[in-house]
Amino acid sequence: MDDIYAQSVELHRKYKGKLATISKVPLENRADLSVAYTPGVAEVCRLIARDKRASFTHTVRGNSVAVITDGSAILGLGNLGPEAAMPVMEGKAVLFKAFAGIDAFPICLATQDVEEIIRTVKNIAPSFGGINLEDIAAPRCFEIEDRLRAELVIPVMHDDQHGTATVVLAALINALKVRGSNTASVRVVISGSGAAGSAVAKMLVLYGCGHIVVCDSVGALHKGRTNLNASKQELTALTNGENMAGSLADVIRSADVFIGVSAPAIVSGDMVQSMAARPIVFALANPVPEIMPDKAKEAGAFVVATGRSDFPNQINNVLAFPGIFRGALDNKVREITDAMLVRAATALACLVSDPQVEKILPDPFDTAIVPAIANAIRE
Amino acid sequence: MDDIYAQSVELHRKYKGKLATISKVPLENRADLSVAYTPGVAEVCRLIARDKRASFTHTVRGNSVAVITDGSAILGLGNLGPEAAMPVMEGKAVLFKAFAGIDAFPICLATQDVEEIIRTVKNIAPSFGGINLEDIAAPRCFEIEDRLRAELVIPVMHDDQHGTATVVLAALINALKVRGSNTASVRVVISGSGAAGSAVAKMLVLYGCGHIVVCDSVGALHKGRTNLNASKQELTALTNGENMAGSLADVIRSADVFIGVSAPAIVSGDMVQSMAARPIVFALANPVPEIMPDKAKEAGAFVVATGRSDFPNQINNVLAFPGIFRGALDNKVREITDAMLVRAATALACLVSDPQVEKILPDPFDTAIVPAIANAIRE
Repeated sequence: MDDIYAQSVELHRKYKGKLATISKVPLENRADLSVAYTPGVAEVCRLIARDKRASFTHTVRGNSVAVITDGSAILGLGNLGPEAAMPVMEGKAVLFKAFAGIDAFPICLATQDVEEIIRTVKNIAPSFGGINLEDIAAPRCFEIEDRLRAELVIPVMHDDQHGTATVVLAALINALKVRGSNTASVRVVISGSGAAGSAVAKMLVLYGCGHIVVCDSVGALHKGRTNLNASKQELTALTNGENMAGSLADVIRSADVFIGVSAPAIVSGDMVQSMAARPIVFALANPVPEIMPDKAKEAGAFVVATGRSDFPNQINNVLAFPGIFRGALDNKVREITDAMLVRAATALACLVSDPQVEKILPDPFDTAIVPAIANAIRE
Repeated sequence: MDDIYAQSVELHRKYKGKLATISKVPLENRADLSVAYTPGVAEVCRLIARDKRASFTHTVRGNSVAVITDGSAILGLGNLGPEAAMPVMEGKAVLFKAFAGIDAFPICLATQDVEEIIRTVKNIAPSFGGINLEDIAAPRCFEIEDRLRAELVIPVMHDDQHGTATVVLAALINALKVRGSNTASVRVVISGSGAAGSAVAKMLVLYGCGHIVVCDSVGALHKGRTNLNASKQELTALTNGENMAGSLADVIRSADVFIGVSAPAIVSGDMVQSMAARPIVFALANPVPEIMPDKAKEAGAFVVATGRSDFPNQINNVLAFPGIFRGALDNKVREITDAMLVRAATALACLVSDPQVEKILPDPFDTAIVPAIANAIRE
């Protein structure tokens, strides 16, 4: 890992970052300037002044996404602030281009106040066709996303929630297929009730998983818990129909599926051994998973996935967000709904024609992914 | 003109705008992803968290400028709002790249409230190395620029003020040279006391013009005028030492230089005839100047400049802003001062080795311009 870290610092230093802009139009002489800029551009302004929709067809807006963070939950590193968030947001912007041809720009905010974030994003929205929220801490991220979805005419998605949930669902669909299990009857334990955990739980419910228990750092979310925030209360209402109480170690016993989006090394081999036979273990904490794949396998895990690129079955958001926004922009989608994302997850799962224990997701460089997901994102 | 308008609309429709992003780093395989994005990028985040200055050397920030407007004074078209401002701001962004290699992005704001604009720009500033304010109406533009200059650690410039003033001063230096006139003794009348007019007046004062009268739509700014806003009061104090009163037609009599940054067709042939012999006439209202060049020439004007590309001596901001921001970014300048801009104007004027009546400014595509101006922009 130290080697990759050193290479990354050197890459960023050498290229002075990763993103650049270019002109799509010729700017070689005065005639070019008079058409691309003044005086010609005045007529395009008048056109848009008459019909704002032309801003999507006659400017970069129709193909642009703002990658926005407040720097409060950067990767697994925590609250590093906006400047230190730039390498991640800029990275996301270049992935948008490389995978989906989208012109994205990183916007790292010098505020962590909910109202101020909402106001700022609304103020800059006329330049963008979509808003990708990123690495904003829970529970603040929920209100920000909900309000922006309601108040903006362009699609808004918090990728840590919905991008992650989309890829997790796709992976789970194929893992269950490999295991020969039924979605409605398997028992799923999710560790983590923040941005990713809550979105994964909701999407699994929508897909038809009937037996989900979500744990936070205290233990299972159940109706006897007090002092839960609004988001956890909502999760409690949606999940745990059996009202199971106890620690993660308690509720993981005899579960078929474990999905960790929480903290490093909190799952032991014994806990995996206590699960149902041939369990599915998604240990997605980054960079150190809830349990290392070899240890999970030793303890009997059947299908194992992590967030890491150095093990099989990497659950990586790059499988989802480029296609989701490609579809949203191309279809002029105002709101990216959970129903669209379930369709996207299903489409993503289908790209693996014959899922195997170590192959439940397509390769991120599979060029069929973006069109398949984009096609699923329609009103 | 109709032809250029039609071509421009077609260009924007065909290319879907003008700006695009690209990746500067390879993103061909999983190894590339792990260096450019996770997990490698985490180390760059940690580096910047320890020292925010690294955001200028290890991310796009060090070479990026936000082109920001509130849509209130778009070209000569007026208050069209943020969506309709996009073609101009996007055009400016591609000019930044084409002329100075700067990665600029258009940000059109959905607010015209001074405090809200200031707050929004401050909130997005961590992603940018400089702020180019554009087409914001006076007098609001003055407070916004002053406050942002004071409160941000990156350079902020309202181009309609200072970019315009820089090019006007460069043009005037060479026009006076052609006419054989002395800067300190010529009498200059400026029509327009908004963003451009006030900045031009201040820069000419700083350069050493001793006899300037500024007119607004009512007439000359003089000490007897009441109900002047703060900006006009400041101009009154800086100019018109003789305290001349009257209309533009009154004060233009016997003036050596007319600089119009005001309204179409407000100067008649008779008014030019009433000026001193062989007067200098800069009629910069766009697209229709204060007086058309042929009419000004007929009335005796010696050197004539406009903002238009279809006449000689185009006073075009593209001569200044790319080099100004190139210099500001390269020299880590926190504030672009008037003294720097006077140096930049002088450098720009010097690029015309032998100024002539119809050649007082260099061609915008002269590659010597950006280095010369950038070199003038240092602390």
